Amino acid sequence: MTQHPGRHVVGIDFGTLSGRALVVRVSDGAELGTAEHAYAHGVIDRALPSTGAELPPDWALQEPGDYLDVLKRAVPAAVEDAGIDPASVIGIATDFTACTVLPTAADGTPLCWMPELSDRPHAYPKLWKHHAAQPQADRITALAHERGEGWIARYGGKISSEWQFAKALQMLEEDPEVYRRAERWIEAADWIVWQLCGSENRNLCTAGYKGMYQDGRWPDPDYLAALHPGLATLVRDKIAHPLSPLGSLAGGLTTRAAEWTGLNVGIAVATGNVDAHVTAPAARATAPGQMLMVMGTSTCHMLNGANLAEVRGMCGVVEDGIVAGSWGYEAGQSGVGDIFGWFADSYLPESYREQARRRGVDAHRLLSDKAATQRVGQHGLVALDWMSGNRSVLVDHELSGVIAGLTLSSTPEDVYRALVEATAFGTRTIMEEFGNAGVPVTECVVAGGLLKNPFVMRTYADVCGKALSTIGSAQGSALGAAIHAAVAAGAHPDVASAASVMGRVNPNVYRPDPHNAKAYDALYGEYRRLHDHFGRGGDDILHRLRRNRNQAAS
Amino acid sequence: MTQHPGRHVVGIDFGTLSGRALVVRVSDGAELGTAEHAYAHGVIDRALPSTGAELPPDWALQEPGDYLDVLKRAVPAAVEDAGIDPASVIGIATDFTACTVLPTAADGTPLCWMPELSDRPHAYPKLWKHHAAQPQADRITALAHERGEGWIARYGGKISSEWQFAKALQMLEEDPEVYRRAERWIEAADWIVWQLCGSENRNLCTAGYKGMYQDGRWPDPDYLAALHPGLATLVRDKIAHPLSPLGSLAGGLTTRAAEWTGLNVGIAVATGNVDAHVTAPAARATAPGQMLMVMGTSTCHMLNGANLAEVRGMCGVVEDGIVAGSWGYEAGQSGVGDIFGWFADSYLPESYREQARRRGVDAHRLLSDKAATQRVGQHGLVALDWMSGNRSVLVDHELSGVIAGLTLSSTPEDVYRALVEATAFGTRTIMEEFGNAGVPVTECVVAGGLLKNPFVMRTYADVCGKALSTIGSAQGSALGAAIHAAVAAGAHPDVASAASVMGRVNPNVYRPDPHNAKAYDALYGEYRRLHDHFGRGGDDILHRLRRNRNQAAS
Repeated sequence: MTQHPGRHVVGIDFGTLSGRALVVRVSDGAELGTAEHAYAHGVIDRALPSTGAELPPDWALQEPGDYLDVLKRAVPAAVEDAGIDPASVIGIATDFTACTVLPTAADGTPLCWMPELSDRPHAYPKLWKHHAAQPQADRITALAHERGEGWIARYGGKISSEWQFAKALQMLEEDPEVYRRAERWIEAADWIVWQLCGSENRNLCTAGYKGMYQDGRWPDPDYLAALHPGLATLVRDKIAHPLSPLGSLAGGLTTRAAEWTGLNVGIAVATGNVDAHVTAPAARATAPGQMLMVMGTSTCHMLNGANLAEVRGMCGVVEDGIVAGSWGYEAGQSGVGDIFGWFADSYLPESYREQARRRGVDAHRLLSDKAATQRVGQHGLVALDWMSGNRSVLVDHELSGVIAGLTLSSTPEDVYRALVEATAFGTRTIMEEFGNAGVPVTECVVAGGLLKNPFVMRTYADVCGKALSTIGSAQGSALGAAIHAAVAAGAHPDVASAASVMGRVNPNVYRPDPHNAKAYDALYGEYRRLHDHFGRGGDDILHRLRRNRNQAAS
Repeated sequence: MTQHPGRHVVGIDFGTLSGRALVVRVSDGAELGTAEHAYAHGVIDRALPSTGAELPPDWALQEPGDYLDVLKRAVPAAVEDAGIDPASVIGIATDFTACTVLPTAADGTPLCWMPELSDRPHAYPKLWKHHAAQPQADRITALAHERGEGWIARYGGKISSEWQFAKALQMLEEDPEVYRRAERWIEAADWIVWQLCGSENRNLCTAGYKGMYQDGRWPDPDYLAALHPGLATLVRDKIAHPLSPLGSLAGGLTTRAAEWTGLNVGIAVATGNVDAHVTAPAARATAPGQMLMVMGTSTCHMLNGANLAEVRGMCGVVEDGIVAGSWGYEAGQSGVGDIFGWFADSYLPESYREQARRRGVDAHRLLSDKAATQRVGQHGLVALDWMSGNRSVLVDHELSGVIAGLTLSSTPEDVYRALVEATAFGTRTIMEEFGNAGVPVTECVVAGGLLKNPFVMRTYADVCGKALSTIGSAQGSALGAAIHAAVAAGAHPDVASAASVMGRVNPNVYRPDPHNAKAYDALYGEYRRLHDHFGRGGDDILHRLRRNRNQAAS
């Protein structure tokens, strides 16, 4: 066994398809070992494994046993990979996708594990991307505006179909018996902590961002009753529980969990957290004005602010929602890497594919290399990055993409570059909306899979006119969880100071080119004109085309 | 020698890259033999062959000797292919690209053949697609509006850079000596007839469509002098000549031309004509209300009307311009097959290319087959077909294409179908503009290369809500020329009656599906909204993107 002096923590990142454990040294954040475990059931979106019964469209479930397997497999493997003494691990913390939420008994047993309910889809955890509760979400939003509920403004004016109350209402309406049997309605982020420390614990972050918990209160029973009489007691009966701040100690590791993980009984278990949010301290982006962008298939923007502001089209703002002592703002772009992937997969001609093979690079590298030699505006194109709808700042998933300026000379790299630029314009729009609302973005830190594309990074720096710092870890979420474990274990006084020691950031890796930035100012103006024309009432054509499409397809 | 009793004519179609001769029987239009000859110099757009000197961008010249080679090679070969007695040929006629125009001496000798001028680019024929006279065309248009010249409305309000006066003004300004030495400024359509019959002859069609000859008058010397003092005498000195109606006898075949072609001295030579216009009688589309669409890389729309009307965005209207006794209207779409080709060449993924190979079909067939199974509107897209600018009805070559409604589910066949539909919407826009101006389109006849794509044809029938008839000849232009030869030779009394005997049309091959036609009415409404927004002042973004592109590229 290699000697790694000092104390260690384990961070576990529960993703959409797998979980990853990371062993980190408390004193300096060194990442010593890691292991991943893929969920046996993955995303359950076609048929229920217990019966083979087909699921309706837009459903996405998971099997909670898969989460426990991550504890049993990935944690010991990561400790072994690190070559440390398991006894040197003083704390463990988790982060989870959200809102992934499940019904359980009062002791935390998932309803889907009860033989009499295992054939009921509503008894299973609903994954974040379960989108079948859209009608319920629409009613939640409409009623909130109608009744003038104060919290609706904290969510950019719109509640997502992904969130706790939309999914609960769907369960109540479609399977009242499962709803009745649910003694708890709990985020998977909290459920996994319950499994580790043996007692129910609920975190402030998901309560605020996914449960409309604001200013110390859940939505009123009156409001919930108006939505559906059966929902009136949802909070009181199934949700209400003291909320724990991020980085707090949830409890000690149980004997059972110690056996699963191979770690010592009684070590600190931290309060649950969310994958994107937990990345902020890992990238040392916790001070007001520092925007963390987790850029992958989609982009999540996390920003701390000293004050509360209502930002048009944000996903949410929660006091202490990212780190204690600040208002945590979240915004997002629903399609980013997804859009580049769609284009590269579906529109790359054979000759380009052959070039990529000859050069031994992938399609993105080839297109990026070709696009990178162009001057700003040289392709003559501007695109709207709404191929997967628009999360911020329009909060409209029925929008679709537009490409303007095409000529017979337009090449695949032209279109690719225009798509990359469009997503950067989308980010700039979000930054400006924050700035206009009095929450200025002073620094940008990037995490996520798109970090590996320098062309994308340079484009964002030039378009936004801001230097980009990059996270110094390939496992940002797991490192962020480990930071919270260290705080829960008392090794650091708070998340910000733990982040300053254990977080990793490469400052100002991509600086804007002043000439390009100036040229992009003009092109961004064109984007905004199209944005407002197609997204803010100039012409509702994109909605009409979608309705037309849905009718034609049905 | 096979026996083909009766009398014959030869039609010769001078295209952009080659000339084609067709031997046709006068009594029934039977096509007996054909031959093609490619121009040795093709399109001269990079360097002058005599010196190797590089040409500026947008130049396109030709070598007139190549035209004579078509007479010497293709005509005898076609006669041989037909297996007829050359003595049975009673007439010969030509059609030409236009406006292709050249400077010559008073005896018709091209200036580029004079040793002292052969190194001067302006001494060569300027091909129709020579686009370097745009600044001159802009001044011609602006001054016409400023002075209230009546003829400008006959050209949809805009004079093309391709036409006679723009090209003449460019010559005058850039090479005054060649301009001075030019004793004639003549369409290649007329020059080739001069070579055949030995005397200068000028046709009404190019004078009207390309020379702004209207109501029996050329543009005023006052107007021309205001444009440039040196231009004041252009018409009097270099252009003015009696104009001959289409199908009239220009003269008898000279001894020299008889030697070139192997035909009898003295047979009828018809007045010159234009490739698109001459196709109308070949397709029997000569009556008012019959619109001929020559659909290839671009589309040319020819329509006869009983009366004169000013149609917004038409290319031109000329009395007797297509057939005697009617007002001949011309409109056009600058990109059609070109757009489909651009997409299939540049955006077809490898997997589709492999499917096409497996099925033994080309990319267009594969995409058409896939697209044909969709219901109208199912792809959720609408496009603007301006990737090569817009000729009619916006007359704006600085526009560019737009695709709206893209999602991560949009496939190549979706986009292909949207592009085909967009060009059909463009044709419908032209038809409606004619109808609104009091020149209704009652029948559609299609000629050209796109005839071979039934999916395109069905889409046009459904979008336009009109049955499409198709020309019954694969050599529409050459057959049209042959019809004019027969009239010039006196074998038929006029073009319309010759067309009724010698022309070929398959009536109502594609009929609109009423259900699809109704669904397209709605989608066409979306197209028109985008069309007016981007093309008629809603947002000038496409022009700004192009200016930006040109600046970035320079």
